[in-house]
Amino acid sequence: MLGKIALEEAFALPRFHEKTKWWAGMFATDTDKHTAEINDVGPIRLDFAERHGVGLQILSYTAPGVQDIWDAKDAQALAVEINDYIAEKVKAHPDRFAAFATLSMHDPQEAAAELRRCVTQHGFLGALVNDTQRAGVDGDDMIFYDNEKWDVFWATCTELDVPLYLHPRNPTGTIYDKLWADRKWLVGPPLSFAHGVSLHVLGMVTNGVFDRNPKLQVILGHLGEHIPFDMWRINHWFEDRKKMLGLRETCKRTIREYFAENLWITTSGHFSTTTLHFCMAEVGADRILFSIDYPFETFEDACEWFDSAEMSDTDRLKIGRENAKKLFKLGAYKDSTA
Amino acid sequence: MLGKIALEEAFALPRFHEKTKWWAGMFATDTDKHTAEINDVGPIRLDFAERHGVGLQILSYTAPGVQDIWDAKDAQALAVEINDYIAEKVKAHPDRFAAFATLSMHDPQEAAAELRRCVTQHGFLGALVNDTQRAGVDGDDMIFYDNEKWDVFWATCTELDVPLYLHPRNPTGTIYDKLWADRKWLVGPPLSFAHGVSLHVLGMVTNGVFDRNPKLQVILGHLGEHIPFDMWRINHWFEDRKKMLGLRETCKRTIREYFAENLWITTSGHFSTTTLHFCMAEVGADRILFSIDYPFETFEDACEWFDSAEMSDTDRLKIGRENAKKLFKLGAYKDSTA
Amino acid sequence: MLGKIALEEAFALPRFHEKTKWWAGMFATDTDKHTAEINDVGPIRLDFAERHGVGLQILSYTAPGVQDIWDAKDAQALAVEINDYIAEKVKAHPDRFAAFATLSMHDPQEAAAELRRCVTQHGFLGALVNDTQRAGVDGDDMIFYDNEKWDVFWATCTELDVPLYLHPRNPTGTIYDKLWADRKWLVGPPLSFAHGVSLHVLGMVTNGVFDRNPKLQVILGHLGEHIPFDMWRINHWFEDRKKMLGLRETCKRTIREYFAENLWITTSGHFSTTTLHFCMAEVGADRILFSIDYPFETFEDACEWFDSAEMSDTDRLKIGRENAKKLFKLGAYKDSTA
Amino acid sequence: MLGKIALEEAFALPRFHEKTKWWAGMFATDTDKHTAEINDVGPIRLDFAERHGVGLQILSYTAPGVQDIWDAKDAQALAVEINDYIAEKVKAHPDRFAAFATLSMHDPQEAAAELRRCVTQHGFLGALVNDTQRAGVDGDDMIFYDNEKWDVFWATCTELDVPLYLHPRNPTGTIYDKLWADRKWLVGPPLSFAHGVSLHVLGMVTNGVFDRNPKLQVILGHLGEHIPFDMWRINHWFEDRKKMLGLRETCKRTIREYFAENLWITTSGHFSTTTLHFCMAEVGADRILFSIDYPFETFEDACEWFDSAEMSDTDRLKIGRENAKKLFKLGAYKDSTA
Repeated sequence: MLGKIALEEAFALPRFHEKTKWWAGMFATDTDKHTAEINDVGPIRLDFAERHGVGLQILSYTAPGVQDIWDAKDAQALAVEINDYIAEKVKAHPDRFAAFATLSMHDPQEAAAELRRCVTQHGFLGALVNDTQRAGVDGDDMIFYDNEKWDVFWATCTELDVPLYLHPRNPTGTIYDKLWADRKWLVGPPLSFAHGVSLHVLGMVTNGVFDRNPKLQVILGHLGEHIPFDMWRINHWFEDRKKMLGLRETCKRTIREYFAENLWITTSGHFSTTTLHFCMAEVGADRILFSIDYPFETFEDACEWFDSAEMSDTDRLKIGRENAKKLFKLGAYKDSTA
Repeated sequence: MLGKIALEEAFALPRFHEKTKWWAGMFATDTDKHTAEINDVGPIRLDFAERHGVGLQILSYTAPGVQDIWDAKDAQALAVEINDYIAEKVKAHPDRFAAFATLSMHDPQEAAAELRRCVTQHGFLGALVNDTQRAGVDGDDMIFYDNEKWDVFWATCTELDVPLYLHPRNPTGTIYDKLWADRKWLVGPPLSFAHGVSLHVLGMVTNGVFDRNPKLQVILGHLGEHIPFDMWRINHWFEDRKKMLGLRETCKRTIREYFAENLWITTSGHFSTTTLHFCMAEVGADRILFSIDYPFETFEDACEWFDSAEMSDTDRLKIGRENAKKLFKLGAYKDSTA
Repeated sequence: MLGKIALEEAFALPRFHEKTKWWAGMFATDTDKHTAEINDVGPIRLDFAERHGVGLQILSYTAPGVQDIWDAKDAQALAVEINDYIAEKVKAHPDRFAAFATLSMHDPQEAAAELRRCVTQHGFLGALVNDTQRAGVDGDDMIFYDNEKWDVFWATCTELDVPLYLHPRNPTGTIYDKLWADRKWLVGPPLSFAHGVSLHVLGMVTNGVFDRNPKLQVILGHLGEHIPFDMWRINHWFEDRKKMLGLRETCKRTIREYFAENLWITTSGHFSTTTLHFCMAEVGADRILFSIDYPFETFEDACEWFDSAEMSDTDRLKIGRENAKKLFKLGAYKDSTA
Repeated sequence: MLGKIALEEAFALPRFHEKTKWWAGMFATDTDKHTAEINDVGPIRLDFAERHGVGLQILSYTAPGVQDIWDAKDAQALAVEINDYIAEKVKAHPDRFAAFATLSMHDPQEAAAELRRCVTQHGFLGALVNDTQRAGVDGDDMIFYDNEKWDVFWATCTELDVPLYLHPRNPTGTIYDKLWADRKWLVGPPLSFAHGVSLHVLGMVTNGVFDRNPKLQVILGHLGEHIPFDMWRINHWFEDRKKMLGLRETCKRTIREYFAENLWITTSGHFSTTTLHFCMAEVGADRILFSIDYPFETFEDACEWFDSAEMSDTDRLKIGRENAKKLFKLGAYKDSTA
């Protein structure tokens, strides 16, 4: 399929070259190649896209990024730098690149203001945040955005009419020591990513964020971070608890309704047709979006899988492009590869 | 279907009546009814079983149970009391009831010895453990069984040729404060249970427990605590990490192979045909076992769902009874209701 | 779900009361009840609809109906009578009832003219035809509409912008004697219906009807009369034959494209969630429409199944109502039960 | 996966070389290549098998074969010739080739006797028959085997404990003229094959063949010739008809039970994971057998699909080899490629 739109595509700042390479050493077979790919916002990506039928890539700063910086001022400064950097890069190829804002999440007002600046001045399509914000004197605290204090931020998202991509980050501090240190192979894609994001987004659901911000749109990667698997079970217990306990005060709709009205899932890093079909049944093809997770996954793996995965032509177009055009109001977007 | 076998069926000690009732207040609409049901090991259960075609119930002490007791001596004493209590109860209806051993998991040798006593003297069919053992001076520590120190225990399981059911327990201590305190509706079945068990059992996989104990059989409830959903993604990253990193030293087989040779999943508390069909594709009907999770779920919900869920007659028999007969060597078992 | 729209709902002419009752004797346990139900275009149906959340019923004359009449003049006269009869009935409840035209299919021009009359004068939403038209001196011939002679009729459908529902009829004549006489239990829903319609509609596909009439919309009942099951296999062989043989002359698109652009399937008489999920993967939820097949099936069976079948809220709304609203341009339609 | 067993693999008699080549002209891009492949019972096939992990191929004479010969004596003579020919060929590679008997189906006793000869003297593993036997003076008649006259034949199958593969053949005579002549692209794999076999085998079900021969095993290709798609619908109507009509006299069990106890399906020519998963839900992985349909399909297409299709390792082994070993009692079979 030509003209696909991809949403979870990472870049890094070239000035962190050495750090990026060191980090790559933890998972990449060829650290030089990975570093070159993640630093590039031009020919390498465009060539992959050309060869694999990707029309538009929505770029975001790589995880853990600013969410890993527990000094609030440093975090804000870096976020601004990243946003201004990628804004320039994107302008060079406006038909092929777009961007999500990078945000310091230490303070709701500050995050809202930077999001507003990025959307109104740079034309960004929303924001991508890497789970909780590291905070505290030694970085052991975690700021969640699932409480009323953050409503000012969520209200800005809906006012600007842009979605937030809730991306994972690695566990740190006490949680890391207690749960993950002795089972390091589970850190990241195999397990800890889904644990982090599923907790955070279901916290938003049960703590009333979507009830107070009914138009808020949140995107989850990796086909939904395990949540669709338990749609029945979550629904069963939520509705049961509402019958006798206070959950109904903050969570007025069913989990299926939040998925129909507020949540989206992408295929990033999860190229399984069986799981995709399952999600088509439980979440519906209208709320699924193609994504790659480049350069942690390859264009080739993602696109060859998606282009040949068994599904109707209608759903392939929706998941591959049309749903994203609706979500991001890209009606005027004319893909040059399609 | 008649003669179903159910594996995750909880009982409590009558002497804790008040505590059980208080606990029930957190989730049950009728605390008296719940308390009566969980304390009964006789007419109430047998009547439900009769009406819903359950032949054999394998009983286990309710969570968090002994795993919640951080004093090692108290934990061991309670485990022994529970085992002797349920052994007597089961003897009264040997064709309708069986039991899993309750174990204090403070010390591998002690746990192994009590398991051996229960299997050889009481005829128990294995053990059910509620995730990590609470430990430490203030109960904030968690003992995981996914390291070499526990091989003596796992070796006893395989020597006795009995499986271990890895059941969840509620998060406690620091983990609770950091992650769950502000999102209490997610504690238990909606999310925290799956987080706990998926981490623990995948820790066993990646830390080599199954490689060192290749015949070990572990049962997971709730259709696998989310893991089947990510079978492709876990497999993808595990195999990738084996190519360059040390994972291959402790995890020689693929995640799919561990599911084919060492792991079982049950339907307890997850009565979704869509998820069941998905698990039939990813895990296979030969490793799925019917269960209810009584009295937290009802016989009616579980059995009416299972008996009418769309699947082949062959698979219904396997999931409903035949797989359990193989796993527990119940060849001679003749169900009186079938 | 309230406000469902149902498309394959049969009525009979009261003046054929005795014949209808005799016919009912072949499949109905209570022939009086069946006859009353199929003759009613008022309180019985409206009451069922009210109780089961059906907003709009699109009514059609019961099979085999006019397609069973091999005298062309008689067939046309009966069609006109039926259309005028149901037009009156529908007018009494314009928010709850609509109708498909009944057509004599002996002559393309005549069929086109009657369709035009029904759509423009009576406001019918399309036509429902019962497979091939019986013809010939002794009724042993079968008129198919999958050849160029019928383009005038198909052109009228697209000009009027209304779909045709290709409903089955029982086999007759030589075909009956050769294939079905000795295996009578397979006549009708168990097998012969799907054989008839799948041949006819795939004949339309391969003989170029949809290429010559690219906007034509055809609806198939019973989740597609087996065709989705073989989507891969049909596609594989069609594309293979196009590489070397003349199929590409008359069938320019792929079978998946015809399903995405020209074909619709309904749930009539096939209340299987497993098959529905399969069709959601192979055909897509955007082309699936709820239907009952009353009074051969009950409102209760159809609606209780559909309302509780596992699927996303979005897809339930689409299949239950929204897709039909798009297909029939019912934007102004405001369901009184929803 | 190594050591796969394939069941629907065709050969032709070299003495019909010209006819085979002419026939190939109707579907093969390279008629010489196809003719060479179908005539070969040695190096070509063995090389494909070696490269694609097929351990054992069960060979059968290509369709329509003897079922196309309406002279009973000619048919019997050809069947015997074919059986003796392939028996010799198979002996040369007993670990890589096995055979199904070719049978003239004009007379039940004669067919039974030839089957017995082939099984007891040649060691054949069963028979493969191409749907109805053409008969009558001009070949327009069709002999079905779904009536009591054929019980002597079916009894021989069960006495010898071998299955019959019910393979399709092309429609001929009146049926061809009435239904297929004007829609020739649907003849064969796209539609007519499934119509023929589904009618025949469901005729066996409803006419009591399996009730009178409860141990009879029949294999269907192409994932079951559409029948699994309608399992719910067929079951619904069969059980409904049993309540009031005489179907219960000849068809005592449910359609799901016949599929669990008497029927098998193979993957021949239907390399769709979506359809396979659907069949795993409706038929069960225990009754599905890998097959190719060589040389009409390629080893490469079939094996690359099957080896990488998402399913559990357990089910891949069962479908790929273990189910066939059980069905054909190949316990001693040691695959040289596995």
